[in-house]
Amino acid sequence: MMVDVSTKNVTERTAVAEGFIHMAPAAVRAVRERTAAKGDVLTVAQLAGIMGAKRTADLIPLCHPLPLANCKVLLEVEDGGIRALCTVKTTGRTGVEMEALTGASLALLTVYDMCKSIDKGMEMTNIRLLRKTGGKSGEYVRP
Amino acid sequence: MMVDVSTKNVTERTAVAEGFIHMAPAAVRAVRERTAAKGDVLTVAQLAGIMGAKRTADLIPLCHPLPLANCKVLLEVEDGGIRALCTVKTTGRTGVEMEALTGASLALLTVYDMCKSIDKGMEMTNIRLLRKTGGKSGEYVRP
Amino acid sequence: MMVDVSTKNVTERTAVAEGFIHMAPAAVRAVRERTAAKGDVLTVAQLAGIMGAKRTADLIPLCHPLPLANCKVLLEVEDGGIRALCTVKTTGRTGVEMEALTGASLALLTVYDMCKSIDKGMEMTNIRLLRKTGGKSGEYVRP
Amino acid sequence: MMVDVSTKNVTERTAVAEGFIHMAPAAVRAVRERTAAKGDVLTVAQLAGIMGAKRTADLIPLCHPLPLANCKVLLEVEDGGIRALCTVKTTGRTGVEMEALTGASLALLTVYDMCKSIDKGMEMTNIRLLRKTGGKSGEYVRP
Amino acid sequence: MMVDVSTKNVTERTAVAEGFIHMAPAAVRAVRERTAAKGDVLTVAQLAGIMGAKRTADLIPLCHPLPLANCKVLLEVEDGGIRALCTVKTTGRTGVEMEALTGASLALLTVYDMCKSIDKGMEMTNIRLLRKTGGKSGEYVRP
Amino acid sequence: MMVDVSTKNVTERTAVAEGFIHMAPAAVRAVRERTAAKGDVLTVAQLAGIMGAKRTADLIPLCHPLPLANCKVLLEVEDGGIRALCTVKTTGRTGVEMEALTGASLALLTVYDMCKSIDKGMEMTNIRLLRKTGGKSGEYVRP
Repeated sequence: MMVDVSTKNVTERTAVAEGFIHMAPAAVRAVRERTAAKGDVLTVAQLAGIMGAKRTADLIPLCHPLPLANCKVLLEVEDGGIRALCTVKTTGRTGVEMEALTGASLALLTVYDMCKSIDKGMEMTNIRLLRKTGGKSGEYVRP
Repeated sequence: MMVDVSTKNVTERTAVAEGFIHMAPAAVRAVRERTAAKGDVLTVAQLAGIMGAKRTADLIPLCHPLPLANCKVLLEVEDGGIRALCTVKTTGRTGVEMEALTGASLALLTVYDMCKSIDKGMEMTNIRLLRKTGGKSGEYVRP
Repeated sequence: MMVDVSTKNVTERTAVAEGFIHMAPAAVRAVRERTAAKGDVLTVAQLAGIMGAKRTADLIPLCHPLPLANCKVLLEVEDGGIRALCTVKTTGRTGVEMEALTGASLALLTVYDMCKSIDKGMEMTNIRLLRKTGGKSGEYVRP
Repeated sequence: MMVDVSTKNVTERTAVAEGFIHMAPAAVRAVRERTAAKGDVLTVAQLAGIMGAKRTADLIPLCHPLPLANCKVLLEVEDGGIRALCTVKTTGRTGVEMEALTGASLALLTVYDMCKSIDKGMEMTNIRLLRKTGGKSGEYVRP
Repeated sequence: MMVDVSTKNVTERTAVAEGFIHMAPAAVRAVRERTAAKGDVLTVAQLAGIMGAKRTADLIPLCHPLPLANCKVLLEVEDGGIRALCTVKTTGRTGVEMEALTGASLALLTVYDMCKSIDKGMEMTNIRLLRKTGGKSGEYVRP
Repeated sequence: MMVDVSTKNVTERTAVAEGFIHMAPAAVRAVRERTAAKGDVLTVAQLAGIMGAKRTADLIPLCHPLPLANCKVLLEVEDGGIRALCTVKTTGRTGVEMEALTGASLALLTVYDMCKSIDKGMEMTNIRLLRKTGGKSGEYVRP
């Protein structure tokens, strides 16, 4: 069952989620040197994250549709892989943590797709909510 | 750039992916005892995984659309959380590892959505390809 | 042509629609005893109804997109089949009767899909609006 | 669970479904005389049926995606309402009865949407499979 | 990156876009005399434009989802082809020029699809914004 | 009405379409120097073209769904704007000219979206089919 949000207040809400994909050195190198056969991994993954976040209510069965005011996906290449950070803002009656988590997940899945000809053993991990503001339950900061 | 698969052979292909979501004991209990406010977590997450796998080409920018012959999502409740296993089959010109990984990810994201009123600290991890058969590159089994 | 709703008031709006699917006794039994090969008919149909209601503006060409505040699908098993009841709420400039009717229809179509290996003769009927509140035209209650 | 169709034969398959919407005389007249405020009811409903049939696998959770070879929606205006007839063809591993039923349902829902300012009491009924050919189970003709 | 619109004002906004498709005389005639094999070209193209405008945020990667209050597509048959005019209204935090341009483009693409058995050389041209109102930047009128 | 393609042969098919967007010098410069506020215009537009081509059957009402084997979008920056070239391949029962035209159009619309804060007067033009191979009607080359 969906939660009835009709009596909740319209407030500004934000959520930040992150995730990490472990990659073989050759795959990380292909991202850094932009030599992956499918193209510019970081830009494609970033877009997939943003577009996925916009479609969260279509993908997560009991999520409410929300008009996002902003969605930002940052990708940082580290030695062992790539970290995705997804920040979402809306003004609405319910929070955007699912949008942020979906955006981070789809960005990482897209990294996998673009590098899988080099490394099939990549692994996504630590996909989690970092922060959430707005709404009745107030701020949440991951301990 | 998409990979040109027009000269690849049409063969039977399968892929199996898994993932895990760490959950607080109270959230695991709500799943086991079917007391989560949003309903039957396992069935909803299973469906979200199947429906997500069917839409992979819409979500992952450079994936080829593929008519899935089967998609199965199994969810096992363990003491520390839930394990998702997604198996996909097709007869086509390219593999279905992205469909399996997308199915597993969306099942776990849906578990998060349905239990987030109990535990916001849940964390998705170990999302990875276990096995892949069919196609020119032959079988892949995770070491 | 879409109706221009830009000058209508933003008010709380609800709609309730119902529908029925006539089923052979063997199909009703499979639902009740949860022995249908494709799984838990009622939960899957309920979700399909909710997800379908959320996508109404994508399916009905001249419908306005509306951010639903709630969508509830109830399914009651009776001797001759299953009754679907779909209730939708929004705060917006136009009503949600199409969302309620679409939700009820997709729940019933999903019952058909999940039981069609047992009974191809199932028939959907009495899909209709029961009640509607909010907006300039006020309350509608089916006579 | 989806049915595994990977071992089924690729054969030509067709399905025909129908449905009816009861309408007040004023609504039938508006369709006949093309005076409905939202435009040409029959053409819009026909298109909504075709487009909906193409998206069946997105709407019915356990349906297989199928590349339709044809989808035809006929609408006949009768004294008490409109009859929709939807015929679907494919060459694939599974049948298209859900596509035909979904196409007929969405055509009728669109009639409702386009005439609801005249008559909110319209009722959809007799949505059912008439015929189905192809596949292991052979021909089905509604008795 | 999406633009952060969370601090922009909610105002009424409109946009008007146009485009033209050059067609061979035989194709124009088929539209005028409603003899195109695929059916009523103008009505189908008009609907495709409206439905496409509603899905703009799904198609243009960095567009914000917006609940449209109205979308109108007019098609005028001229001697050398068809002119599409798409007008969109919303009440929101960002403009609807992309919705208007997307609506006009999809209407013209649909004209192409419906007449391509007669003329493959049709050409779309002059797709541009005519006017835009609302928001901080005020009115824009094409010089 | 859709065209019934069930009796057409499954053959390899390709289509190439192009289009151009006229841009003010400042907008062209922002693309070349990658200073547009929304990011890397060419990569985003290329992806939007590919993703749009994959969804053609969802957007153009009477198009058949086709599993694309490849879709390539090339963008060339010229002095007065950007040229988009979209090449699509499939193995199927009907051609892919609509996919190529839709891909080119959505790439150009995305260029507009990403540069519209610099120049609202951009104009899309010369969107047309260049070449088409495969199928009963054989090769088409634009004269």
